[in-house]
Amino acid sequence: MGATEFKVQLLLTGNEIMSGDTVDSNSALIARRLAELDIGVYRKVTVGDDRDLLARELSSMAEQADLLIVNGGLGPTIDDLTAEVLAQVTGVGVAEHPEAVAHLQQWCAGRRLALNAANMKQALLPVGADIIANTIGSAVGFELQVGKCRVICTPGVPGELAAMLDLIVADLARRLQRPAQRSILRLQTFGLGESSAQQMISDAIPDWPPEVELGFRAGAPQLEIKLSVSNSAALAARQHCRERLEQLFGDHIIGEGDCLLAERVLQLLRERGATLTTAESCTGGLIASMLTRIPGSSEAFHAGFVTYANAVKHSVLGVDEAVLASDGAVSEPVVRQMALGALQRAGADYAIAVSGIAGPDGGTPDKPVGTVWLAWGSRDDLRSLCLRWPVERTLFQTMVAAAGLDMIRRLLLGLDSEPRYFSQRRV
Amino acid sequence: MGATEFKVQLLLTGNEIMSGDTVDSNSALIARRLAELDIGVYRKVTVGDDRDLLARELSSMAEQADLLIVNGGLGPTIDDLTAEVLAQVTGVGVAEHPEAVAHLQQWCAGRRLALNAANMKQALLPVGADIIANTIGSAVGFELQVGKCRVICTPGVPGELAAMLDLIVADLARRLQRPAQRSILRLQTFGLGESSAQQMISDAIPDWPPEVELGFRAGAPQLEIKLSVSNSAALAARQHCRERLEQLFGDHIIGEGDCLLAERVLQLLRERGATLTTAESCTGGLIASMLTRIPGSSEAFHAGFVTYANAVKHSVLGVDEAVLASDGAVSEPVVRQMALGALQRAGADYAIAVSGIAGPDGGTPDKPVGTVWLAWGSRDDLRSLCLRWPVERTLFQTMVAAAGLDMIRRLLLGLDSEPRYFSQRRV
Repeated sequence: MGATEFKVQLLLTGNEIMSGDTVDSNSALIARRLAELDIGVYRKVTVGDDRDLLARELSSMAEQADLLIVNGGLGPTIDDLTAEVLAQVTGVGVAEHPEAVAHLQQWCAGRRLALNAANMKQALLPVGADIIANTIGSAVGFELQVGKCRVICTPGVPGELAAMLDLIVADLARRLQRPAQRSILRLQTFGLGESSAQQMISDAIPDWPPEVELGFRAGAPQLEIKLSVSNSAALAARQHCRERLEQLFGDHIIGEGDCLLAERVLQLLRERGATLTTAESCTGGLIASMLTRIPGSSEAFHAGFVTYANAVKHSVLGVDEAVLASDGAVSEPVVRQMALGALQRAGADYAIAVSGIAGPDGGTPDKPVGTVWLAWGSRDDLRSLCLRWPVERTLFQTMVAAAGLDMIRRLLLGLDSEPRYFSQRRV
Repeated sequence: MGATEFKVQLLLTGNEIMSGDTVDSNSALIARRLAELDIGVYRKVTVGDDRDLLARELSSMAEQADLLIVNGGLGPTIDDLTAEVLAQVTGVGVAEHPEAVAHLQQWCAGRRLALNAANMKQALLPVGADIIANTIGSAVGFELQVGKCRVICTPGVPGELAAMLDLIVADLARRLQRPAQRSILRLQTFGLGESSAQQMISDAIPDWPPEVELGFRAGAPQLEIKLSVSNSAALAARQHCRERLEQLFGDHIIGEGDCLLAERVLQLLRERGATLTTAESCTGGLIASMLTRIPGSSEAFHAGFVTYANAVKHSVLGVDEAVLASDGAVSEPVVRQMALGALQRAGADYAIAVSGIAGPDGGTPDKPVGTVWLAWGSRDDLRSLCLRWPVERTLFQTMVAAAGLDMIRRLLLGLDSEPRYFSQRRV
């Protein structure tokens, strides 16, 4: 709704973006901040530091859009053309903006730097522009009305842009009288593919209400399901959709917002006053790392073991050498002994153990690359299964680590089900 | 040069990019691959999954460009519009492409999936299009001549795009008779900041030859330094630059191309027939995970220990309980005992041990968040130092893990120096 009423375009400039030396995360940041006001970005154009091309895009975009946000090209070097080209396109010329000069003087003084000519260039703004404070860097932002389009020029340095967006979004909300209307509910899931989730929803909920926008964001290992509504009247419908989704595949829902699988597992452990340990072969410390990335993980995770070689599976975790010899490292008895050894040595309540063949080498006809045994649970309730997940090494490690965490999550929740992912991957 | 002769534009499509849910790294990848052929990207437009807008951009970009690369919109869902809109714009209509059908059949068979209607949509291509194999996913790429412009449509899934770009770049090199003219030498470094590296080079090599283009790509933890030349006559000048850089900060250079710190460490260990173990507290398995992400790591890395809690530092690694009580977990004697315990239990030649405060909690006036003790080396030559790196938790973990790997790299190479990074971070 917002997007059709109020057209926003983005113009990004910078040779480093065009060359691929820098991945542009600024436009995603701008889009997410505007979404808070239910404003969608309609079209985005990216060009290098090329005067003619920049002038052409500025003119044509300002004609089409209600709001044009320009990002980049505000720096002190000769490559930074935004102010100059905008002044040229609009025919207003540039002049030293007193507030920008004051900002530069203050910024340099704070750093005991001399205010040089290169920096002073950053105060040369199109005549009539209003400045937007830069609370971090030297380059002020500015805005200028061009016909019916408001042009807002912002710095390319991500941290400076982020700080400036607070001011820009607040100002837009005021001017458009558009206090954050759009409400986005994000559900994190593991074990569903995007297309199968979509298919299941279409099949099971043919009467999906049109006022609840459904979106997906596929990451490895999680799939995010987004339910967004553009006004509070639709919140009841969304709640209904959420309940239907929970009936459909509620055991796949890890949590809301940014919730990570490891975070949810740690939370469940804390609620139970329990601890978890890991015994990792093919994931090589990734499960431990996913857990310890979360602040406060030390409460429920005290120790983990990476036992890559057979000898250390025996010496560190006490896996029986005869079983290693007879069954091989990638086998049910070995992965179960790894879990039991880790439980004992860490003095933990729960364990995840994995042993598999991440590849590209090490596969056999019997146990091809992608084969993995997982064991999880407690001393009294230790479970295990074998999967075959023949994908590239690091993706394999990521998915297997997540699978281990998800099985512990399910066990802690008393769920007996498996992620749908497994149906095609069980061996 | 390439850019003015041969105009390349990119058209990206996807609601998830416009909304900011996904950061677009695909266009950077495309730009970097085209740069190998000395082809620059002139202009990039990004739009959502909007039929009219997509049609308008496709028409106008195909008129302006010699080559138009379209990325995204090849998937099985109704949002995926690229083939359909391209067929509509060019007036050729769509038809089931037999090679695409065969690919889909094979792809589904390999995954024991039924070929459903949603998938079959991916075989409906503009009449006259040539397909480009997708070696990873279900969506084939395709190309179509539109007037004087070659339009190449590629999948939005990054891994699938990356694989397909090998084919596209090879084909372009052949058709344009442009065997990689631009030669890019990429040096991976650790321990240098982008601006300080640039300043050091400007100061030390004022006569830098203009035919050798210098570029940087800052990542965490590595900084890539790029030396590119557009013809073979400049190779000698580049070699000279490389030698000057090696004099300037050669000990910071990890390797060429995509070389990762962990990869280099594993290579040095293999050359020496030696093994490494890890004893991690605040990095929580990240060092082990960085090592085991590398194929073949099992040769030199057999075991790692994550000892987060004091009790397991004692029970698993044999750290003295009295020392833990008197000096605290983040201390020189503890980190050294962690290293020695890991060396003994893993039977390894070298160890990295880290103990620090990743935050956000756990800091004290004496040992604030960001404080970390590292120990590295062998039983006979074990070294240690303390750093203070007060950054966000996961960045702290990344930089500390890399610092540990870099100190082992330096030790294995017989270098006594430290990364420049440390100068402001030593405690």
